[in-house]
Amino acid sequence: MSPPALHKNRLFVGTFVHSKSLNQLDYLHDAAVAVDTSGKIVAIEPQCGDQGKAVEMMCSKLGWEAAEVQVRTCKEGQFFFPGFIDTHIHAPQYPNAGIFGSSTLLDWLNKYTFPMEASMAALPRARRVYGQVVRRTLSHGTTAAAYYATIDVAATNLLADLCLAAGQRAFVGRVCMDRLAPDYYVDEGGPDAVMARTRETIDHMRRIDPAGDIVAPILTPRFAPACTPETMAALGDLAKKDDLRVQTHISENVGEIALVRELFPDATDYTSVYDGFGLLTPPHRARPRPLIHQRGAKVAHCPCSNSALTSGECRVRWLLDRGIDVGLGTDVSGGYSPSVLEAARLACLVSRHMSMPYNAQGDSLRAPAAIPDAERERAKLSVEEVLHLATRGGATVLGLEHKVGGFQVGMEWDAQLIGLNMVNDDDNDSAETETEKNSGGGGVDALANAVSDDGNVDIFGWETWDERIAKWVYNGDDRNTKMVWVKGRLVHQRLPSSSSSS
Amino acid sequence: MSPPALHKNRLFVGTFVHSKSLNQLDYLHDAAVAVDTSGKIVAIEPQCGDQGKAVEMMCSKLGWEAAEVQVRTCKEGQFFFPGFIDTHIHAPQYPNAGIFGSSTLLDWLNKYTFPMEASMAALPRARRVYGQVVRRTLSHGTTAAAYYATIDVAATNLLADLCLAAGQRAFVGRVCMDRLAPDYYVDEGGPDAVMARTRETIDHMRRIDPAGDIVAPILTPRFAPACTPETMAALGDLAKKDDLRVQTHISENVGEIALVRELFPDATDYTSVYDGFGLLTPPHRARPRPLIHQRGAKVAHCPCSNSALTSGECRVRWLLDRGIDVGLGTDVSGGYSPSVLEAARLACLVSRHMSMPYNAQGDSLRAPAAIPDAERERAKLSVEEVLHLATRGGATVLGLEHKVGGFQVGMEWDAQLIGLNMVNDDDNDSAETETEKNSGGGGVDALANAVSDDGNVDIFGWETWDERIAKWVYNGDDRNTKMVWVKGRLVHQRLPSSSSSS
Repeated sequence: MSPPALHKNRLFVGTFVHSKSLNQLDYLHDAAVAVDTSGKIVAIEPQCGDQGKAVEMMCSKLGWEAAEVQVRTCKEGQFFFPGFIDTHIHAPQYPNAGIFGSSTLLDWLNKYTFPMEASMAALPRARRVYGQVVRRTLSHGTTAAAYYATIDVAATNLLADLCLAAGQRAFVGRVCMDRLAPDYYVDEGGPDAVMARTRETIDHMRRIDPAGDIVAPILTPRFAPACTPETMAALGDLAKKDDLRVQTHISENVGEIALVRELFPDATDYTSVYDGFGLLTPPHRARPRPLIHQRGAKVAHCPCSNSALTSGECRVRWLLDRGIDVGLGTDVSGGYSPSVLEAARLACLVSRHMSMPYNAQGDSLRAPAAIPDAERERAKLSVEEVLHLATRGGATVLGLEHKVGGFQVGMEWDAQLIGLNMVNDDDNDSAETETEKNSGGGGVDALANAVSDDGNVDIFGWETWDERIAKWVYNGDDRNTKMVWVKGRLVHQRLPSSSSSS
Repeated sequence: MSPPALHKNRLFVGTFVHSKSLNQLDYLHDAAVAVDTSGKIVAIEPQCGDQGKAVEMMCSKLGWEAAEVQVRTCKEGQFFFPGFIDTHIHAPQYPNAGIFGSSTLLDWLNKYTFPMEASMAALPRARRVYGQVVRRTLSHGTTAAAYYATIDVAATNLLADLCLAAGQRAFVGRVCMDRLAPDYYVDEGGPDAVMARTRETIDHMRRIDPAGDIVAPILTPRFAPACTPETMAALGDLAKKDDLRVQTHISENVGEIALVRELFPDATDYTSVYDGFGLLTPPHRARPRPLIHQRGAKVAHCPCSNSALTSGECRVRWLLDRGIDVGLGTDVSGGYSPSVLEAARLACLVSRHMSMPYNAQGDSLRAPAAIPDAERERAKLSVEEVLHLATRGGATVLGLEHKVGGFQVGMEWDAQLIGLNMVNDDDNDSAETETEKNSGGGGVDALANAVSDDGNVDIFGWETWDERIAKWVYNGDDRNTKMVWVKGRLVHQRLPSSSSSS
C-alpha cells in the first residue's frame, strides 16, 4: 500500500534555495534538478539556463527521453525550497489552536487539552480534525511531521491512514499515559495492556506502509509524570528491540520539574529519568542536559508555545554551541500555529527576547542580568539559522538527514515551490479613481484597485535574494507555498489566486 | 474634495463584537446597526432577529424607506468588528518590511531606513510604494493610521492624496530632521525653511480635505537628536497656535537615550526635552515617564519592532496602571508587518516574554528577577485587552475616541466584516481518494481535497464566541477581513476565495 511510483521522471528548473550550513543559504539560479520515478534526486545542474537548455542537458546526461519528462519551471520571483519539517505536533489538539485562556502548562492540559484529545475516540470527529490537520500542514509546506495522536488505537491508526493517503511523511505515535491522567482519558489495564495497544498501532503502520517510507510508528510516552515506571521500562525495551524512535516532553515548566522530582526521588535529574528507562533516543523536546547529547537525542524547539504558554524560552544557541541537534516544532496547540514558517519567525523573535535582559529604562520586570553584551548578542538567531532549523535541523531530529532537508543527489524530492507577490509598477494607477457602484444589497463603493492574493510578501524588484528570503520569513504564509512535493509526488497545490479590491 | 456623502442609508445585520472595557468584549447577536448617509451610526438594536425583521424595525424607528436602504447581513460565523487603528507607521519604509539584518536601531536607520526614505523623492516610486501601503493596510482592516512620510513635500502630499482617494483615515506627517541626518537626506536651509515645508504639507491637506474628516496633518519631528532646538521650538509654537497633533519617537534604545543626554545636557530627562519645546501632546511612542501622563500625551506600543529590533519591551501594564492611554502601532518597518492584528498578537506574546524573568532551568541569559509571581502574571495581556488597544485604545491615542473604535450611536461606521473558515463535516471525505492527473508541464498528482482560502482560522462549530475571537487573534490574517468601511463607505472588499488542493 506504499505510494505508487511516479509515472514520469521529473525535472525542476529555476532558482533553488536551501541551507548550506547553519548560517548560510545556498542559491542556485538557472539550475535544474532531476528526480526519478522513485522520487529521488538523480542530478543537479547549477547553471544550465532556461527550460529548453535544462531539458536538453539533463536528458542527454541521464539518457531520458525529453518527451517523457514532466517539467516544472519557476515563474519570476519563485524558487524551490526544501519542505518544512515539524518535529513536534499534537494532531488532536488542532481545534484548540489559539485557545489558551490565561492558563499555564499543567492547568491548560486539564482544561483544554485532555478533553479535546479524549473526544477523538469518536472516529467521525477524529477524521474531521485529523483530515484538516494534514491538509493545513501540507498547505504550509510541512512535508514531514512527528505527530502525537491520542491513547485511542483506532483514531491513531486513522491518522496514519490519512497521512499516507495525503502523501505526508509522518511519524505517528499513540500517546501512552497510564497514571496522573483524568479518569475519562487514561491508558487503562496496566502496562501489558498499554503495550498491547501500542503494538496494535505499530503493526497497523507496518501493514499500510511496510517500508516505512511515508508513515512510520514512534513510541510516545506523554511525559514522565504520566507514565508508570513499568510502562516506561517496557517502552524502552521495545525501542531497543525494534529500533523504534521515541518522542516525549521534558522540562517545559517549573511546576512540571518539581512534580518529576517528587515522583522520581532517586533520579539525578529529569533527563536521567528517561535515560534510566532506555528512552533517550531521538527525538526529544524542550530543554536538555548534556546527557541528551551523550545519548544522541535531539531537541524540538517550539517557540510559539514558548511564547504563548509562558513556560520559558529555549536557549537554542546554548544547545547548538554544545553540538546538540535542534529542529523546530509547531507544538500545536501549545503553539498556536500549524505553520513551521511561523515557528521559524517566532524562533527569531524568541531569541531576541532572550537577548534583552532589561529594557531601556533599566526598570523592567526583569532584573538586569550580568551577562556580557556580546553573549546576549550571540543569542539572536538569524533568518538563515531558523530556516536551517526548519529543514536540515528538523531532518536530523527525525533521523532523516540523509533523505530530506536539502537538495542533494541521492536525497529525496521533498520540496515546496515558493512564490512571492511581485508589486507591479502600475498597481497604483487607479488609486485615485473612485468608482461608486450601486449594486443593491450591501452595496460596493470600494475603489477598483486589485490586491493580489499571493500573500503579504510584497517584492518591488530591487531586493537582493537575501532580502527576499528575509521578507518571506517575516511576512510569508501558506499563500506563498504554491506547490508541495513529498518523495517526488505533488501533494499540495494552490490554485491561482483570486483578488480583492480596495 | 472631501468624500461625497453616501447614496443610501445603510443597515448592518448580524453579530457585532467590540470592546466594552479594557478586558471585556461586548457581543451583540441578531443585532442591527443603522448608518446614515453621513456615515454616522444613528441606531443600534441589540435583539431584532433576522434581516427582514431588522429592516422593518429600523425603518419604522428611523422613518426610512425600506427599499432605499442598503443592507449587509453577516453570513454564518461572520461578525462585524471595529476597524483597526494603527497609531504608528512609516509609509516610506514599507518596502523594507522584514529586512533587519542583525542591526539594532541606530545602524538600522543608516543602513536600511534613511536610503529608502530618501528615495521617495522620486514621485513614481513614492506612488508605487505608498499606493501599496494604503492598499495593504486597508486589506488588514486598518481604518485609521498615523503615518510618518518623509522630508519631501511633494511625496508627503501624495501620500495624503492616496489616503483620501482610498478613503482611509490618516494623519500624515512630513518628517522634520535638520541635524544629525545623512547628507543625502536632511531638512536643509535652517528652521525657517523646515517650517515652510511643513506648512506646505499642512496647507495641502487642508485644501484637499477642509474638514479633516479623512486626512489631516500631524507635526512630526523625527526624534529629538535629529531636530535642532530652533525647529523643535517652532514646531511647538505651531502645534499650539494651530491646535495640531504631534507625533515623535522616544527612549527606544539605550544608545539613543545616551545621545539625547549628550545633546541636551540641561534637560532632566528625555521626555522633558519634548516638553520644553511644547511638543508633549498626543500621540507619543515607546517608553514614557509620568510627565507624559500629566500632559495628556499617549503611547503607541509597537510590539513587532520591540521584538524584531531588540530595542526593549514596552511595559504596557505599567502604563495602563498609571492611567496612560496606549494604542498599537505596526511601526513598519521597525515592525515587520503592516497588520494591526499581528501587532495585537505580538502584544500578547511580548507581554508573556516580559513575564518570564528566568527559564525553567533557572540558568537563562536573564538573571532571576526579584519580582513576585503575581506581578509577573499581571504583566500578561489578554486577547480582550490587545483588541481594546487595537481599537478604542488607538482611537484615544489619535484623539478620535468619540468618533471611532466601537459601535455606539453618534460614532462613525469604521468597521470590518470578519469571516472565519468553517470546517465542513464532510471536508475529509475525499482524503483517501487519490487522483493522479497527467496534465503535462509539471503534472498534478495531488489529492483532490479543497483547502479553502478563507485563511487559517478553522472553526469546527463547537467553539464559544470567546474562543472564536482568540482563534482569530492568534491565527487570523487579511483573508479574514472580508470588507472594510470608513465613515460608512466601503473601502475594501475581498472577493470570494479561490481554493487549493492537497
